[in-house]
Amino acid sequence: MLTSLLATGGSVRHLTSAARAAPCLVRHLSSGPGGPEPEDGRGRRAARLAALAAGAALAGSALWLAQQRRGHLTAASAASSGQYGQRRADLPTFSMEEVSRHADVKERVWMTYHEGVYDVTDFVRQHPGGAAIMMGAGGSADPFWDLYAVHKEEHVLKLLERYRIGNVREDEVGSHRDGTDDPWAAEPRRHPALKPSSKTPFNAEPPPALLADNFLTPKYERGPDLFYVRNHLPVPVIDPSEYELEVDGVGVDGLTLSLEQLKNDFPAVTVTATVMCAGNRRSEMTQVKPVRGLFWGAAAVGNATWTGARLTDVLKAAGYDVNSGPGKHVCFEGLDTDPSSTPYGASIPLETAVDPRRDVILAYEMNGQPLSRDHGAPVRVIVPGVVGARNVKWLGRITVSDTESDSHWQHSDYKGFNPSVDWDTVDFSKSPAIQELPVNSAICWPAPGHTVKVKDGHVHVKGESGLTYWQTAGSVNAGIACECFGGGQRIVRVDVTADGGATWHDMALTVEEAAPAGRCWSWCLWQGRVPVPPGATAAQLWVKATDASYNTQPETFKNIWNLRGVLSNAYHRVDVNLKRV
Amino acid sequence: MLTSLLATGGSVRHLTSAARAAPCLVRHLSSGPGGPEPEDGRGRRAARLAALAAGAALAGSALWLAQQRRGHLTAASAASSGQYGQRRADLPTFSMEEVSRHADVKERVWMTYHEGVYDVTDFVRQHPGGAAIMMGAGGSADPFWDLYAVHKEEHVLKLLERYRIGNVREDEVGSHRDGTDDPWAAEPRRHPALKPSSKTPFNAEPPPALLADNFLTPKYERGPDLFYVRNHLPVPVIDPSEYELEVDGVGVDGLTLSLEQLKNDFPAVTVTATVMCAGNRRSEMTQVKPVRGLFWGAAAVGNATWTGARLTDVLKAAGYDVNSGPGKHVCFEGLDTDPSSTPYGASIPLETAVDPRRDVILAYEMNGQPLSRDHGAPVRVIVPGVVGARNVKWLGRITVSDTESDSHWQHSDYKGFNPSVDWDTVDFSKSPAIQELPVNSAICWPAPGHTVKVKDGHVHVKGESGLTYWQTAGSVNAGIACECFGGGQRIVRVDVTADGGATWHDMALTVEEAAPAGRCWSWCLWQGRVPVPPGATAAQLWVKATDASYNTQPETFKNIWNLRGVLSNAYHRVDVNLKRV
Repeated sequence: MLTSLLATGGSVRHLTSAARAAPCLVRHLSSGPGGPEPEDGRGRRAARLAALAAGAALAGSALWLAQQRRGHLTAASAASSGQYGQRRADLPTFSMEEVSRHADVKERVWMTYHEGVYDVTDFVRQHPGGAAIMMGAGGSADPFWDLYAVHKEEHVLKLLERYRIGNVREDEVGSHRDGTDDPWAAEPRRHPALKPSSKTPFNAEPPPALLADNFLTPKYERGPDLFYVRNHLPVPVIDPSEYELEVDGVGVDGLTLSLEQLKNDFPAVTVTATVMCAGNRRSEMTQVKPVRGLFWGAAAVGNATWTGARLTDVLKAAGYDVNSGPGKHVCFEGLDTDPSSTPYGASIPLETAVDPRRDVILAYEMNGQPLSRDHGAPVRVIVPGVVGARNVKWLGRITVSDTESDSHWQHSDYKGFNPSVDWDTVDFSKSPAIQELPVNSAICWPAPGHTVKVKDGHVHVKGESGLTYWQTAGSVNAGIACECFGGGQRIVRVDVTADGGATWHDMALTVEEAAPAGRCWSWCLWQGRVPVPPGATAAQLWVKATDASYNTQPETFKNIWNLRGVLSNAYHRVDVNLKRV
Repeated sequence: MLTSLLATGGSVRHLTSAARAAPCLVRHLSSGPGGPEPEDGRGRRAARLAALAAGAALAGSALWLAQQRRGHLTAASAASSGQYGQRRADLPTFSMEEVSRHADVKERVWMTYHEGVYDVTDFVRQHPGGAAIMMGAGGSADPFWDLYAVHKEEHVLKLLERYRIGNVREDEVGSHRDGTDDPWAAEPRRHPALKPSSKTPFNAEPPPALLADNFLTPKYERGPDLFYVRNHLPVPVIDPSEYELEVDGVGVDGLTLSLEQLKNDFPAVTVTATVMCAGNRRSEMTQVKPVRGLFWGAAAVGNATWTGARLTDVLKAAGYDVNSGPGKHVCFEGLDTDPSSTPYGASIPLETAVDPRRDVILAYEMNGQPLSRDHGAPVRVIVPGVVGARNVKWLGRITVSDTESDSHWQHSDYKGFNPSVDWDTVDFSKSPAIQELPVNSAICWPAPGHTVKVKDGHVHVKGESGLTYWQTAGSVNAGIACECFGGGQRIVRVDVTADGGATWHDMALTVEEAAPAGRCWSWCLWQGRVPVPPGATAAQLWVKATDASYNTQPETFKNIWNLRGVLSNAYHRVDVNLKRV
């Protein structure tokens, strides 16, 4: 199970360079008091570096387990300071040097956490894909668990404890902390209205009602903007004057651009586009059956204008023939990295990248202002119509390739499966990486549990003259999913029912942009009046959107449930109380 | 209600030229024995021509009522030779000249059918859009009812009879038949396996099981091909050596091409594309609540290779700038016409027409052979990914325009609405013309009611070595709807359940074409093994497909029901009996 998220073979390549780039993390292993340099320094060191990086993978797994099995984050449990990882008198003691010898199945696979030594060989053997965890052999998981503070969930630690075989030599405990900085010290300031589903890495969404009031997700007076934040790693600290964007890959001559060059040497293009997380509305899907992932509500989505250089212009400047060049994918690497210095990464199909109608840009402005750090400063990719995960932030490298990005997030996450696929049977290689998202919609107002005033048998909407009627209004994520995420299809209809589908009512769409057919990259907002059953004191409102291809939403989550809780686009249902006026 | 289908104002333009082009139909009015030429010959004649054409509209309504209210066709009922339209001793007699004076609401609106005279003024007043039926004032509906043999349904005639006011003068009865030929005399030969949902016009589909066996819908030994036929009017008789294609409209210099020129002056391009009727699977939707339309099963869909000239090449040859030319739509006119000589017509957005990635062609070959008459010989449009109705057959004219085609089928048919919109509230102007279709799929085998052999708890599929297991196989119309009808999205998964969704099972996709992402214009076929509940003697199989945007199908028809029964893409459900072996 732990290995499910682990990177594919591609990560091995990262590990080498990653280890090179992380001297402070390496130091504690090569110079720890109890860890003498082995005879075959090079080989052992490489093994330990691999082990270290693999620890990252395990730590990542733990993070992932912690975040996703529970479906949401809780405060770090008491377990973090409890029995797990503590010295046990009934078990033998091992030196880190001994641990480092156990780096493959033949020698058995060991790793450490706090004072504990663990043999995870059986886990590796039982799980297909166990080869990936092999990279974690022989090292300490602690540096990564320091990074991912959220790992300290009892069930994660309990699982690990099942593989406990011993204790770390007392004088070596904590040695890994040498030189370790707090990776979260430089996080940016966030708007207090953003509701976090995870603080490290920072993931948060605004109140849905605020979304529905603004075609462009705004910045408010009391702080930064309200656009949802989905970070996978610490926000990197980047000096714009030293920023460099590398362009390479098949058919590319190679190019390095400064921020100024990106701004000055290419036409600036502005695109209005919605960006949405694949896990938006996961909190509803998890009610059917638990899924793994951040506990997102319906507001992990936002709409903004983005200004930047066309990807095609930059590719052309790098010598790439956008009409008939080689390759099948365009890969993006962020400047945000994990402890092994493996960057966040993702890719999009070449067809998407080079199609002028897809409006892919390298954005340096959002809503007319330089990108904020949380949204990818100084440069991020905007791929209109495509899931947020491919809109790579803090863009450091663009690579034209014959294969998809080898990133974990491209290969082993952000994919859909049928409801009968579980963590024991899932094979991430069998499903395509999410690019466009399905049609979606949500009721932003009223909120669940609200008391709604009913007049003339209708749930009223905001009046034209400032009357304070309660409002049935929502952001049509469908604007994202269909127009925006799915080839730019326009939303043609939003239907709401308050009687379980007996009657459906057209909502008024307030589309503020007249985009060409097939290039409707923005959501639309909507509102309307909905009749409620006579005498009812409560009602459940349902919404569904329909796009220009007449794709619409599935009725319930039961038949679209998937183990990662992505693609949650069943009808949005909100229970409200009714009060006659 | 009758007026709902009537053409918009645009039809008036057609009527004038239409009447000019139909001298044989005009003659009986201007030279009938009891119809002296009125003093104001020109005005009266024009009024009667309008009336004649309007009769077409009414006849069209009747056809439509007959076909669509019942949801399917039956043999012409006894009513056709029964009391309706027969002489009634209790009513006065009118001359056709008198009838012709009642051409507007002020004078009241009359028309005739057989021996009856009808005053439809109140109907016109009661129904919004009644202006359209005004064009039918003062004439005989019979020529059109001869064309649309299917009109003679009792409920249609009964409705008409409510407006009965008198009898036609005996010596004028049947005068309209002067010079009227049987418009169906020249219909082509069809494959006997095609099951008609309407014979005139001819509409028919093949047995689903035959579809699923062939990636390209085949021609069989004993007759023509098995590709479904959806004709709106009689198949025109066209001499290929005299065929001419006109190209005109905004930004176009004008061009006339012979078939030889189309073949020789432009590169021949071959595209494999699925074509599907918007009403495919209507017979399932109508079970929820009756809809109007042909009673299509799940096989109003087919896949073929199409060879022809690129639309963009022809537009360029006509002097049109495909990169920045004016206009918003490209309209197509067929050479098939109604009695007023109004042609079948449809249009597609300019963006679709000029996008090289959309592969729009003017096809003269299907599966390597010249087009058959039923499929549009000598030339039809193929718009991959777009509903059959826009793939205009017997193509006579291409017009670049600022507006959509003014055809009835573009404006007042082939649109979707929410389930609460009925024939009294529908406003066809409020909904966009269907272009791309939503993701769809169907089980082609086993058929409903089949007894399926169960082995090892599974419904078996066709074995690799010729074993005669029963098969759960289907044509993924999704291949059409998503890949093909919706921007060319690929089908990524087909799930089947035999236990009401408790477990879902991935089917094996047999995609025979490696199309680029976003240009998957063909369906894919699939098959697989499905476990059935232990001990069960019957099961209901459900299928759903998911496309590359992860759009999937709605669970039931209840919430996607629409009055025209189009866009029927809820789960396909097939009841089978189970026999253990």
